This record gives sequence, structure tokens and C-alpha cells, in this order.
Amino acid sequence: MAAVVTLLSDFGTDDAFAGICHGVIARLCPDAQVIHITHGIEPTRVEHGARLLADAVAYMPVGVHVAVVDPGVGSQRQAVALRSADGRIFVGPDNGLLLPAADACGGVVEAVAITNPGIMLHPVSRTFHGRDVFAPAAARIAAGLALGELGEPLDPALLVRSGGDVHHLEGSLLEATVLAVDRFGNVQLGASPDALGGLFRPGSTVEVATKDDRYYARCAETFADVDPGELVLYEDASGLLSLAVNHGDAAEVTAATVGGELRIEFAPGLEDDP
Amino acid sequence: MAAVVTLLSDFGTDDAFAGICHGVIARLCPDAQVIHITHGIEPTRVEHGARLLADAVAYMPVGVHVAVVDPGVGSQRQAVALRSADGRIFVGPDNGLLLPAADACGGVVEAVAITNPGIMLHPVSRTFHGRDVFAPAAARIAAGLALGELGEPLDPALLVRSGGDVHHLEGSLLEATVLAVDRFGNVQLGASPDALGGLFRPGSTVEVATKDDRYYARCAETFADVDPGELVLYEDASGLLSLAVNHGDAAEVTAATVGGELRIEFAPGLEDDP
Amino acid sequence: MAAVVTLLSDFGTDDAFAGICHGVIARLCPDAQVIHITHGIEPTRVEHGARLLADAVAYMPVGVHVAVVDPGVGSQRQAVALRSADGRIFVGPDNGLLLPAADACGGVVEAVAITNPGIMLHPVSRTFHGRDVFAPAAARIAAGLALGELGEPLDPALLVRSGGDVHHLEGSLLEATVLAVDRFGNVQLGASPDALGGLFRPGSTVEVATKDDRYYARCAETFADVDPGELVLYEDASGLLSLAVNHGDAAEVTAATVGGELRIEFAPGLEDDP
Repeated sequence: MAAVVTLLSDFGTDDAFAGICHGVIARLCPDAQVIHITHGIEPTRVEHGARLLADAVAYMPVGVHVAVVDPGVGSQRQAVALRSADGRIFVGPDNGLLLPAADACGGVVEAVAITNPGIMLHPVSRTFHGRDVFAPAAARIAAGLALGELGEPLDPALLVRSGGDVHHLEGSLLEATVLAVDRFGNVQLGASPDALGGLFRPGSTVEVATKDDRYYARCAETFADVDPGELVLYEDASGLLSLAVNHGDAAEVTAATVGGELRIEFAPGLEDDP
Repeated sequence: MAAVVTLLSDFGTDDAFAGICHGVIARLCPDAQVIHITHGIEPTRVEHGARLLADAVAYMPVGVHVAVVDPGVGSQRQAVALRSADGRIFVGPDNGLLLPAADACGGVVEAVAITNPGIMLHPVSRTFHGRDVFAPAAARIAAGLALGELGEPLDPALLVRSGGDVHHLEGSLLEATVLAVDRFGNVQLGASPDALGGLFRPGSTVEVATKDDRYYARCAETFADVDPGELVLYEDASGLLSLAVNHGDAAEVTAATVGGELRIEFAPGLEDDP
Repeated sequence: MAAVVTLLSDFGTDDAFAGICHGVIARLCPDAQVIHITHGIEPTRVEHGARLLADAVAYMPVGVHVAVVDPGVGSQRQAVALRSADGRIFVGPDNGLLLPAADACGGVVEAVAITNPGIMLHPVSRTFHGRDVFAPAAARIAAGLALGELGEPLDPALLVRSGGDVHHLEGSLLEATVLAVDRFGNVQLGASPDALGGLFRPGSTVEVATKDDRYYARCAETFADVDPGELVLYEDASGLLSLAVNHGDAAEVTAATVGGELRIEFAPGLEDDP
């Protein structure tokens, strides 16, 4: 069975960056099956990429998973390859992008810095390590190279972790970071229903506060449980709280943007005006 | 020879939805060859998706064809799989998305509701059946499962059909729905030249009326038959009438939008002002 | 090992054009491995496509390389297939799109006009030769057909070349065309450092003049060599001069657009005001 290499990046698809990485892999490992998870990560938003990779990887065949969201390319940040407990290999910059996915796959059991010039394409560009470092490293692993051949072993405990809490809960008031806004305008928050100790109850009404305004939303299981045009707070397909408007665009309604904050009061009648 | 699975959706490519469906298929049917027809259907526009799928499927290898434009996900709409007379399998929501393509392939000869929990991914999300229902069902069919194993048989006559006429012809006046606007600004109308009884004659001039304005256009075989900047009405690669501007953008010129109407008077000299 | 077919076009991914070409190839050459280099070439910008193809092809396996940026489709321009000295086959319109890539692969050693109706899909659309001419021709070559079977031999010297100079150097003043603006806002210029006779020196300061304004930029090896927000002039991953803003968007800052001009004064203290 062919080795699988998946790609996730902030390259977009208007340029040839993603296609070039695909070509590099096909040259070095002609049997590899390449799956493009997405190249639509917002440019340089490492946490957005980390979240989508951690979400997506469980649905991918076990293989080599390349991720490139790399604002520090050309600086001192390391290029790394990590083996997770379930046998996957993650390849990318050491900036927090890979760890949430590796954690979701049982944690890192082996880590190396990609330093072996023999596995890179030369000259190594200062600005496109996807092409010259990450794709060739991934292709060689997919073709059977041992992880240790990529470079020096690293202590997994020293890998860079990206910022921690993406929500704060105080009583019935949740402050949560907007992790993503999808094509449908659905607003994904950095909190799962499980983390809220029973506050999220389908059928109840909550109050959503943005910087400038307030809205009521209904807790429900899916968009279709509310009337068209109504705001709904639900557990999305990634297991996180999301806001949607049935047949509408919640990001537009709430002016939510990735990286911003939303406050959700789960007991709206009890809240003082701020 | 590897089984082919094609994907068409309104997922876009900025999120990981399409890549996740690809991964699910690769896990369950590692030999499948996945072809992304497009994920650029305008969100929730079932008829746009139905039209593009019906257009594209004749150019695809015989295989399993998944389509997901699914504003009713999570509601009572059924998930279905259909076999067409030429041996293709179509998988998606029962909302009219699949039937025009199946009709173009000889009509539906077998239909089932996808209800067998054993072929789905669990927990089944209420909002992402592409991942949890349609992709796994398609992958299992591609891997050799019999259609009947997906669930209960359905009477093809009871499948949901999407809205009918996309044009109305009265004398020499055509009112047609705008089915699509492509990247080049070409405006595709819901009428083929064949349906117009000889009104469409290359070389003749017609008058195009939008809500606010009127334009002359030349009937021709291709853009290059008119001068740069000139409006041209032609039979497009899908066999439908389309408006273009040679080296320009007809959608911008005419302010046409998908789902809107254009009126075309094929005998402009004979028409009273409205 | 499977034959490789790469695709590059201005089709975008919102429509089904690219997916349909993929399907046509899969039907006619089921073993082909299809790599989408990009479909994001700006519509009808032949030189942009030529540049990206010439950049990307070295990273692709030797195979059949289809490119479609074809404002003249349906006119008298020829459809051609070219063999380069390194054994690659290029397929597309004879409008200058293919030659820079073929030149980068050792030059054209055999050329044919694609005129054999037996290898096309019928009816041949007047507006979508990607589907009806180029993809089927490429698939048949990938499946083993001899190049000469596609049509009449052509004299490579008579192939159309797109416009020549993309920069002009006078003393220390460079006038260069903007070849591309990528997703990150990096502005690629039509000049390599090698062509400037030592003017480009990392660490030095230059002055960038747009139509309306002037900016200082630092010559450096990568974004990270300058402070966030600072303009940097560097040799990009394609070997060309590019302008970037570290953690910013150089195209926005300089209002640069593809096809426009930027002037760069490499000895800013010596320059008279214009």
C-alpha cells in the first residue's frame, strides 16, 4: 500500500507553493499518495493551523503529515520531525504548529531536528523551507528513511508550544477566543461544551456579547433546530462550541474575527449590565 | 484499476472540510483515486451544484460521485446513494443535488437511503455528514460493498427534485435564470440554444436587459469572434447560452448574479420599451 | 511507475474547469498521477503563467505538463505539444506560455501542432480547449502515444514567444516589472540579483519608487533579517528580487500590482529627485 503524505499550510492555492511541494514529494517518493488537507490557513496564524491539523489528522491514514505555517522561516527556529505514539510522523517548523496534533495522536515519542543537508534540496532557500526542507524530509521518510537520519535527536519536552488558554470561565460567563470562521460564516470558539460543567444545555438561551453589541442565541444540536435567521450555539463537528445563523452568516452578524474574543453569558437573566 | 471517487461540494478550500473527506476515503479505501471536481459551489446553492455535477460527470471515469451541498444537514432530509443506468453511484443528500447528473447518466436504476450505522463514522456529527456519512459510504462502495448494504431501498420516483424551469420563452423574448458566473466573469444562463427554436443565430444582434439597464450583444461562436470589450452571446462548453465580454467581465458589465434573471430580446428592433 | 501529468491554469478552483480536466486525464490514462501546480494564474495573464510554470517545472517529476492560460481560445492560435531536451512534454496554446519552461528544461527538441481530430473530445468546444484538446492530448501521451501522432511537426523557431525584457537597468536605477504578488503580499520583480552586476548587496539600503511615493528598503537575505514592519529587498525562492514587509504586506504598502512597474535606486544618496 502506498505511503500517505498529507499537506497543510498557509500557502493558499493562487500561487504554486502547494503544487511545488507536491511535485517535490512525487519526485522523491513516486508511490506516495498526497492529500491536501488545506492550504487556506490564514497567513502566519500558527494557532489556526495547529487547531485544524489536530482536528483533521484523526481522519487521515497513518502517514507523514507536513504542516507549514512558518512566519519565522529563515530565522533560528528549528525544522523538526516528530513521531507520535500511534506511528504518525509530523514534519514542520518548531513553533507550536505540530504539537497539538501529535498530542492528539498519543504524544511525541521521538523528535529530531532536521539538520542533515543530505536530505534537503540545494540551494536551500531562506524563505521557502516547505520546498527545500519539509517536503523532501517528508518524502524521504515516506520512502522508508529512518527518522533519525534526518538530523539530531531532540528532547520532546523542549519543543516550542503555542499559547495556552483559549477561554476563560467565570461563573456563567465564558470569554472565548474565536479560533476560526469557516466559509459558511460559522464562528468556532476555543471551548468545548465539556469544559463548561453543564452550562451548555440544548434548548436554553444565552447572550452573546461582542465589543459593540449583544445578541441572544439558542443552544441547540444543529442549525436546523432554530428558525432561519436565528443565532444558534452548538457543538460543532470538531467538538467545539460554534455560533451559526441558520441559513445565514454568524461572523457577519456578530462581526467576529479570528483571534478576537466573544463573551457568552449562559444565565442571561442574572447578569448585570457591564 | 483503482476505483475512482469524485468530490463536489460547497466546502471551499480555505477550511479542511474537503481534505478531511479525502482522508476518510483514503482510510477506508486506500486504493481509491480521488478527484476533486470543485469545492467552489456557492454555499447552500443546491441548483448550482446540481448543474455543475451534471456538467462534469460525463468527463469523469465511471466511479462513485459524492456531492455535498446540504443546507438541510441535521434535519429530516435523507442521505441517499443512487445507481445510474451507466453504472455510476451518486452519494449525497436527497435535496435535488444528485438527480440531474443521474438523469444525464441514463437515470436512476437503484436507490437506497443511507441508514446503516455500521457504515458511518461515530459519533455522527449533526453538521458534517460529508465526513461522517457521505465520504465513508462512498469509500465502502468504492472498496466493493454492495449498494444495498448502505441502508433501505427507496423508490426513485420519490426522490426530491429541485425546481424546474430556469427559463421562460415568449415570442422572441427569453427570460433566463443566471445559473453561474465563472472566474472569467462569463454569465451562464439556464437555456440552451436548442430550446429556442432557431432564435439564436450567430452574427445577429440581441438586446440584454438587466433590472436597471440594457445592452446590445452579438451572437457568435466564441469570444474571439467579437472585438475586445464587446458583449457576446454564445453556446458555452456546457451547451448553454452564456454572455461574455471579449477580454472583459460580463458579470461586472451586466451586474448579473447567480440566481438572478436576465431578459434577452432576440428581435430587438421589434420590441416596445418596457 | 505511473506517468505524471501536471496542470497549471488560470481556471481558478471555484468552477469545475480544473476538476473536469483531471477527470478527462483519468479516463484516458487511468494510471496517471495528476499534480495540480496551481489554477490561480491571474485570468489571461500569459506571462504570469509562463513564469510560474518555468519556476515550478524543475520540482516536478519528468512527465507531461499541461498549461492553459489561453485568452485566444477559439481564434487562430495553435494548440501545441513540445518535447524538451530533458524528456518532458509541454502541452498548451502557442502563445508564449510554454517556452520559458521548455527553455529551462534544455530547450525544445521537437514540436507538433495538435491537429489530429482523433485525439480530441468531440464536439470540440470553441471556449474550453483544456477539456477537449489539451487534457486529452496530454493523457494520450502519458498513456504512451508518440508525440508525432498528435499532429503536424512544427519548426520550434516559429513558436510564439511572449514579450521580452521585464527590467531595464540604467546606472544604479532599476526599472522592473512586477511579475507576481503572492498570498503574503510579497512582490516579485522581473530581475535577478545576478543581472545587476553587484548592485544588490545585503545590508545596503535602496529606495523604492512607485508611481506616487518613495520608500526605503533594506537589502537582506530573508524577511527575518529586518525588523517587523520594515521593507526588505531579497532574492526569493525563484531566484528573483522580491520586496516584502516582515510580518506585513509589501503589495499593500507599495500599491504594487501585477504588470505594473517599480523603480529601485540602489544608490539613493546619488539620485536627483525626479
